[in-house]
Amino acid sequence: MVMELRYNPLIGEWVMVSSVRETRPWQPSNQCPFDEGNEETGTGWRFLILPNRFPMLTPNAPEAHKVDGFRARRSLGYCFVIVETPKHDLSDLHEIPLEDLTLVLRGVRDKMRELEEVSFIRYIYFFRNKGKEIGVSLTHPHSQMYALPYVPLRVRLELRNMRRYMKRTGKCLLCSVLEEEVKLSERVLYANSDYYVIKPYYSMWPYEVHVIPRRHVQKMTQLSDGELTTLADALRVTTAILDNVLVRDMPYIMALHQGPVKNDESYHMHVEFYPMLRDANKLKYAAGVEWGLWTFTYDSSPEDKARELKETCRKVSQSLKPMGSCA
Amino acid sequence: MVMELRYNPLIGEWVMVSSVRETRPWQPSNQCPFDEGNEETGTGWRFLILPNRFPMLTPNAPEAHKVDGFRARRSLGYCFVIVETPKHDLSDLHEIPLEDLTLVLRGVRDKMRELEEVSFIRYIYFFRNKGKEIGVSLTHPHSQMYALPYVPLRVRLELRNMRRYMKRTGKCLLCSVLEEEVKLSERVLYANSDYYVIKPYYSMWPYEVHVIPRRHVQKMTQLSDGELTTLADALRVTTAILDNVLVRDMPYIMALHQGPVKNDESYHMHVEFYPMLRDANKLKYAAGVEWGLWTFTYDSSPEDKARELKETCRKVSQSLKPMGSCA
Repeated sequence: MVMELRYNPLIGEWVMVSSVRETRPWQPSNQCPFDEGNEETGTGWRFLILPNRFPMLTPNAPEAHKVDGFRARRSLGYCFVIVETPKHDLSDLHEIPLEDLTLVLRGVRDKMRELEEVSFIRYIYFFRNKGKEIGVSLTHPHSQMYALPYVPLRVRLELRNMRRYMKRTGKCLLCSVLEEEVKLSERVLYANSDYYVIKPYYSMWPYEVHVIPRRHVQKMTQLSDGELTTLADALRVTTAILDNVLVRDMPYIMALHQGPVKNDESYHMHVEFYPMLRDANKLKYAAGVEWGLWTFTYDSSPEDKARELKETCRKVSQSLKPMGSCA
Repeated sequence: MVMELRYNPLIGEWVMVSSVRETRPWQPSNQCPFDEGNEETGTGWRFLILPNRFPMLTPNAPEAHKVDGFRARRSLGYCFVIVETPKHDLSDLHEIPLEDLTLVLRGVRDKMRELEEVSFIRYIYFFRNKGKEIGVSLTHPHSQMYALPYVPLRVRLELRNMRRYMKRTGKCLLCSVLEEEVKLSERVLYANSDYYVIKPYYSMWPYEVHVIPRRHVQKMTQLSDGELTTLADALRVTTAILDNVLVRDMPYIMALHQGPVKNDESYHMHVEFYPMLRDANKLKYAAGVEWGLWTFTYDSSPEDKARELKETCRKVSQSLKPMGSCA
């Protein structure tokens, strides 16, 4: 049995190794483990934050094996599953009432506040995988939270670039990007009082969309209850758009990019959605160029996609009745 | 129509945008375009280097559109397809005779030498995508080469880490890794006179394998004819192992990581294979953790996988008769 973090010195990043997970079931044998009334779930709840049964990180991780010439460390941390609703058959966040989704986000924020106090936690990651196309075995609406003992590479890169920009210009990088996007308006899909939903100029995935707070804020723990209501609203609009733009379920990754636990004023939190489709019948495959170089190929025009997404926003907003308005 | 490079300032990397590619066929309508005797291919060849018909980069790329607040530049470069054999039905490199594969690699190296002379080329990438699981539409054996006007992010990270290590220790990072792997021998799968095939300690994909030259060399253009023969041998052994370890076709990405055109002595070239399967029936999905953080989860033990791969090496070497020997 191996459970440890191993360091890849070429790219400068940890790999979470855990052979325990090899045995995890691909599909639950009979009943959905997230439904009400199960051993783990109980009854009478509106959402749940459960420890992941097959965690990559745990506070009682074994000692790492020492191997000459290589670096390993303990897999210290936490992995949680957030069951967002007792309803098994909801397709996505926009089918959860605004009030209920706001409660989920408050629960997540409050959990993050607890985790920030744990001495070995350096970074907290809130994310959502959706769709069998990216290997999601459980269809019951859920998201996840990892509390990590290191700041992961992609966030370190963002942080470095935001820091440099602030040093050079005195301004926040993402505030400047947002200012330009709003001025141009071509790629702004939606706005409410606290957030913009943008189709970024520099999108990597065909239908990639970012949710960006207007306020220069680093972390979810800094958000007020009101800012969680408007965040829930922006997320609901985003999943409603993604679920309708191709008139079929959209598999996607939702990634909250926030600053590290140890606060850095230059960071601007935002939520990135990476949808996996190019069109209704085609996946966007990440292959040699994307994985080998971390350079993306974008086989379309972000502005064309922005037009499709805007049109869908206007369509879905009629029934969704969001707090803000589509562009 | 958009064809340009756009800069993602958050991660600090270019995105290759090309809406021309939207129209490219998923499957060729009738006949394989890489078979002998087609309009593009002609007859009487053992391998071909053809311009990609739907390139992301081209020497006559249009001017980039200027947009306030964002960076764009021309998609200057070259994209080639290397048809490795006229035989349509070969499964992988190991079914190409050693002598023929050596000729292919010489052709690639010589083309790289030409491309290194082009003023706007900063990096040359040789890679191979295999399998419908990563979106490969043409089954005729082929690899690809991109000549880029910038050094891509993943290589920049490697270069930075190798440079730092050399500055700190006076040694090459990958030479040190190789020394330790050889000393331990647990993860060494195969060795010939010039290369080791290793299951890295810090593997990110379940069956990830690296081919590493013993000699501290930066680029493929520095390899002698003899070193291309032994490289062909090591690549053949690697694909034979991957094609047999799960007793089924293995979809994979092969990525040559070499130094930039402008040479940097600290870089050590190597070939990384990212196979897409966890076991015979399961894909390894990259999802929220991998894409959102660029941190990998490894659901097994690299040492267990090394054992499987070693056993397969011994099995396939009986018929393959490679130049070196399995560990």
